[in-house]
Amino acid sequence: MEAINVLGISGSLRKASTNRGLLRWAQNCAPEGMQIETADLSEIPFFNADHQHDQAEAVLTLMHQAEGADALLLACPEYNYSLAPALKNALDWLSRAPDNHLLAGKPVAIMSSGGGQGGARAQYHLRQVCVYLNLHPLNKPEIFCHAFGSSFDPQGNLVDDKIQKQIRELLAALADWHGRIRR
Amino acid sequence: MEAINVLGISGSLRKASTNRGLLRWAQNCAPEGMQIETADLSEIPFFNADHQHDQAEAVLTLMHQAEGADALLLACPEYNYSLAPALKNALDWLSRAPDNHLLAGKPVAIMSSGGGQGGARAQYHLRQVCVYLNLHPLNKPEIFCHAFGSSFDPQGNLVDDKIQKQIRELLAALADWHGRIRR
Amino acid sequence: MEAINVLGISGSLRKASTNRGLLRWAQNCAPEGMQIETADLSEIPFFNADHQHDQAEAVLTLMHQAEGADALLLACPEYNYSLAPALKNALDWLSRAPDNHLLAGKPVAIMSSGGGQGGARAQYHLRQVCVYLNLHPLNKPEIFCHAFGSSFDPQGNLVDDKIQKQIRELLAALADWHGRIRR
Amino acid sequence: MEAINVLGISGSLRKASTNRGLLRWAQNCAPEGMQIETADLSEIPFFNADHQHDQAEAVLTLMHQAEGADALLLACPEYNYSLAPALKNALDWLSRAPDNHLLAGKPVAIMSSGGGQGGARAQYHLRQVCVYLNLHPLNKPEIFCHAFGSSFDPQGNLVDDKIQKQIRELLAALADWHGRIRR
Repeated sequence: MEAINVLGISGSLRKASTNRGLLRWAQNCAPEGMQIETADLSEIPFFNADHQHDQAEAVLTLMHQAEGADALLLACPEYNYSLAPALKNALDWLSRAPDNHLLAGKPVAIMSSGGGQGGARAQYHLRQVCVYLNLHPLNKPEIFCHAFGSSFDPQGNLVDDKIQKQIRELLAALADWHGRIRR
Repeated sequence: MEAINVLGISGSLRKASTNRGLLRWAQNCAPEGMQIETADLSEIPFFNADHQHDQAEAVLTLMHQAEGADALLLACPEYNYSLAPALKNALDWLSRAPDNHLLAGKPVAIMSSGGGQGGARAQYHLRQVCVYLNLHPLNKPEIFCHAFGSSFDPQGNLVDDKIQKQIRELLAALADWHGRIRR
Repeated sequence: MEAINVLGISGSLRKASTNRGLLRWAQNCAPEGMQIETADLSEIPFFNADHQHDQAEAVLTLMHQAEGADALLLACPEYNYSLAPALKNALDWLSRAPDNHLLAGKPVAIMSSGGGQGGARAQYHLRQVCVYLNLHPLNKPEIFCHAFGSSFDPQGNLVDDKIQKQIRELLAALADWHGRIRR
Repeated sequence: MEAINVLGISGSLRKASTNRGLLRWAQNCAPEGMQIETADLSEIPFFNADHQHDQAEAVLTLMHQAEGADALLLACPEYNYSLAPALKNALDWLSRAPDNHLLAGKPVAIMSSGGGQGGARAQYHLRQVCVYLNLHPLNKPEIFCHAFGSSFDPQGNLVDDKIQKQIRELLAALADWHGRIRR
C-alpha cells in the first residue's frame, strides 16, 4: 500500500478525554503505510478576523500539518447536541489558510465518543461543515461510542474490542477511499 | 409592559462585526421595559472539563449575567456552514454552571448576519442546541442578513431600515413570548 | 384540568407499526381531561399543487381534525436517517389548508420508535419543519424507542414500562406547555 | 468520455414544476457521453412494509432504472423546510430493493428550486439521507434557484442563463466525480 499521512484532530481538550483515546487507539492500529500524526489544539486561539493574518505559532503548526496530510481523522465530541468548539475552530482556522486548497478534496474519517447517542448529533453537523470545506467524509462505518460505560479506562484508553475492530475497519475504509478519490 | 432583562451574545469577536452591529441596533431600539445587556466573550477560554471548576473571571461574569437574564438574544454568525465557536462555547460554559437551571426554560431570539444564506445554516444548528439546553427560541421572525452588501456601514452598524424593522418585530415577539411561557 | 383535544399522527402506515403502538399507549394513558384522536393517513395522496384545491375526502377529514385540535402528538418513524414521507406529507397538506392558522402556535409532543438511534435523526428534521409551521414542540422529554428489541409485542403494542412512564410524562408536559403558550 | 447513465428524479409532481424544469434543462445540456433518463413518480405509492414485496409496476420500473444508472441527479424541492415526500419516498423504496446494492456507492448531483433559500434546507436533509444510503453527493456546485422570480417561464422551463451554466458545471463535476469514485 502507498503511504498515507493522516492528521488526527480531537475536539476535546481534556487530558483523559475518550475522544483522544479513540485517536490513540487509531495510531496504534493504523494499517501498514498509514501514519497518523495528531494536532495539538491547546494553544489555538478563537478565530478572530481582526487577527487572522497575525497567526499564533500553534495555528501555523496546525496549517503546516494539514498541508502535509493526505486525509483527516476527526474525533468529534458532542457538546449540547452540536460540535465541540475546539474542533470547529480548528477547521475554521484551516479554512482561512493562505492556501485555500489546504483542505479541499481530502478524505475524512469521523469517530465519536459521547453521551446518549454516542456523538451522532455532532457528527451530522460536522458533515455539513465538510460540504462547505469540500472535504469528503466516509459514509461508513459511523463510529458512535458511549463515553460513560465500560468502553474506556479512567485514562480514556479504549478497551472495548468491538470498537477497536470498528476503528480498524474505519482506517481500512479511509485508505481505500483515499485511493479512489485523490486526483 | 413588565421589565425584561435580556442578555445579548454575539458569536463574532471581530470589532466591526456585523453581528455585533445587529446587537447594537437591538439595544437602541428595544421596546420600553426591555433592557439588553451584552456579554463580552473576548476573555472566555475554551471549555475544558479539567478546568471546569476553576473558572476564569470572564466565565463567572457571563454566568452571573445569564442568571439575571429573563431571555437571550443571540447574534449567530455562520462559519463554514455551522456555528461560530465563540458563541457555542459560551453556551457550553453556561450549561455547566453550578446552577443547571441557569438557562432552562428561557425564551430566545435569534438573528444573523452572514454570507450566502445570511446565517441560516448556523441558526438551525443553534436551534438543535436549544433543544438540549431547554431554551425556547422564537419561530418567527427569522432574521438572515447579508453581511457583505450595503446593509451595514464599515464599522458594522446596521443601516438597512428593512432589517431595523425586523429587529423591532423580533424584540416585540420576544417580549410577547416571554410573557406567555414564563411560569 | 381544562379539556385538551390532541390529534395523534403516526408516520408509519404498517398495521403492526411500533409507532402506532406508541400512539395507542398514549391514548390509553392520557391524563384526565386530555382526549387523543388519531389521524388515518392511509388514503391521503401525495401533495401535488396541481390538485391542491381538489382535496380528497381523507385530506378534508385530516384538516378538520387538525382544526379542532389544541395540540399535536407526532409518532415519528425514521426512514433512511430522515422523516417518513407519510408524516411529512400530512403536515405539508395541513400547511396548505385554506385557513393557514390551522397549525400555527399549537404545541407539539414528539415520540419515535426506530432503528439504531431510536428515531432521533428524524426528530431533528421534524423540529426544523416545526419552525416553518410555527408549531411549538416540547424540548423534553425526548422519546426514542428501539423498535427491534423487546419493548413491543408482535402487534406493535408497547410493553416496556419505562417507555410507558416516559409517555405519561410527555403527555403531562404537553398539558402544561399547552396551558402556558396558548393565547 | 466514457458513457454515463444518469437517473434524474424530481421531487415535485406538479406539471409545471420548476424542479422538473431543472431536470429538463439538464437533459438538454448533458455533456457528450452522458444520458439522463427521468423517473416517473406519479404512480409510486407510499412505502408500507406490509406491502413491500407486492410492488406496484411503477416501483419495479423505478428500481430497474436505478439499477441501470451509474449516477443520480436529484431535483430536490423544499416543502416546509424539509424534503418533498415524493422524492424521499422514491429513495425509501429504492433502499428496500431486493438487491440492496442498488444505490450504494453511486455518485449524486443535487439541485433545487424553492422559496426563500432556494431549497437549501431540504438539500442538507437529503445529504443526511445519502449517508445512510451510502450515496456520494457532490459537494460543489450547490444549486439553489429562486422558484418565484424570473428564472423560469410559466411552464417551469429554466430561462436563466446563469443557472443554466451552473447546471452544465454540475454535470461536468458529476462526470468527473463518477470517474474518480467508481470501482
